Amino acid sequence: MNKTHLAWEETSRKKTYECKIFSISESYCKSPRQITKADPKAEPHTFTIIDTKDWAIVIPVIETPAGKKFLMVWQWRHGSQCLSLEFPGGVFEPGENPEEAAARELYEETGYKPQKIKKLGDFSPNPAMMSNKVHFFLAEDLIDTGKQELDEDEYVEIEIVDADEVIKGMGKAPYIHSLMGTALSLYFQDK
Amino acid sequence: MNKTHLAWEETSRKKTYECKIFSISESYCKSPRQITKADPKAEPHTFTIIDTKDWAIVIPVIETPAGKKFLMVWQWRHGSQCLSLEFPGGVFEPGENPEEAAARELYEETGYKPQKIKKLGDFSPNPAMMSNKVHFFLAEDLIDTGKQELDEDEYVEIEIVDADEVIKGMGKAPYIHSLMGTALSLYFQDK
Repeated sequence: MNKTHLAWEETSRKKTYECKIFSISESYCKSPRQITKADPKAEPHTFTIIDTKDWAIVIPVIETPAGKKFLMVWQWRHGSQCLSLEFPGGVFEPGENPEEAAARELYEETGYKPQKIKKLGDFSPNPAMMSNKVHFFLAEDLIDTGKQELDEDEYVEIEIVDADEVIKGMGKAPYIHSLMGTALSLYFQDK
Repeated sequence: MNKTHLAWEETSRKKTYECKIFSISESYCKSPRQITKADPKAEPHTFTIIDTKDWAIVIPVIETPAGKKFLMVWQWRHGSQCLSLEFPGGVFEPGENPEEAAARELYEETGYKPQKIKKLGDFSPNPAMMSNKVHFFLAEDLIDTGKQELDEDEYVEIEIVDADEVIKGMGKAPYIHSLMGTALSLYFQDK
């Protein structure tokens, strides 16, 4: 279905803020009505965009005699000011491709290395105002090295949780991170 | 499981940027090791927090002789610079509760009013760096008023899509918005 008549046209962009983890720009745009000259108003519209690196999130599956489990990580989250139980994941390092970032984050946060890893899909974490992507993976046949590789400031503890408990828990503490729900939507697709 | 030993302690916060849709603060924090005095380093750590209003997202379900359908909306997204096909949703207006915001956004973007609406759950859209919440609803028994209530700058077109097509499409264009996957993870929970 052709919806290009809904597209806006960016005419310029200006960086207005920068910090360690992202930068902010104002994007000046022509609306669909301005592009087609149906709207005589000359002023461009301004939108705010957050630019940051891509992220990877991994669903690590452990098959046990007691059923399917997920390898999860507990950590404090500074935006929500609370503890969160999540799939491992994080920010790409320079030069990494999505699969490398996913496998590295899984290993650093949990000490587990996957023998099988496959991409499930990717999304814009927030296409309204963020330009980056988040890439989702399924990791299987995990080998436990017994040792995390955390940064000095990183406090992460692992927990192996029944898959059903995670699925039923989404949207209630400690499963508060929306992207873990996104991950599950791809996990179900893969079933 | 008590994981409070992973909690950080915010000592102060300073606003560093403000725009129409959010503000940014630096949060100065003591790490778990600093709280317990296990770490002699006196410097607080700095984290960047984005404060913005809460959001509501609604899955509007339409039962048809040809099966279950979702009422979706097409719109241009300025962060990703592309078109996106999404469940209706948006930002809370002052004084609104989550259900009111959800029903209003559904009506404004689609012209449909729900006779039944129920909360599915809520998440932090990004607990690492955002303080707000996103609330998810299921809307059923919809009445089509035949008229959207769009802002002057809003270009939104509706499409009624087979539920299975949406579920299978997540993570691939035009289903690029991560929060729509989050919504589906709660939709499956509700089944």
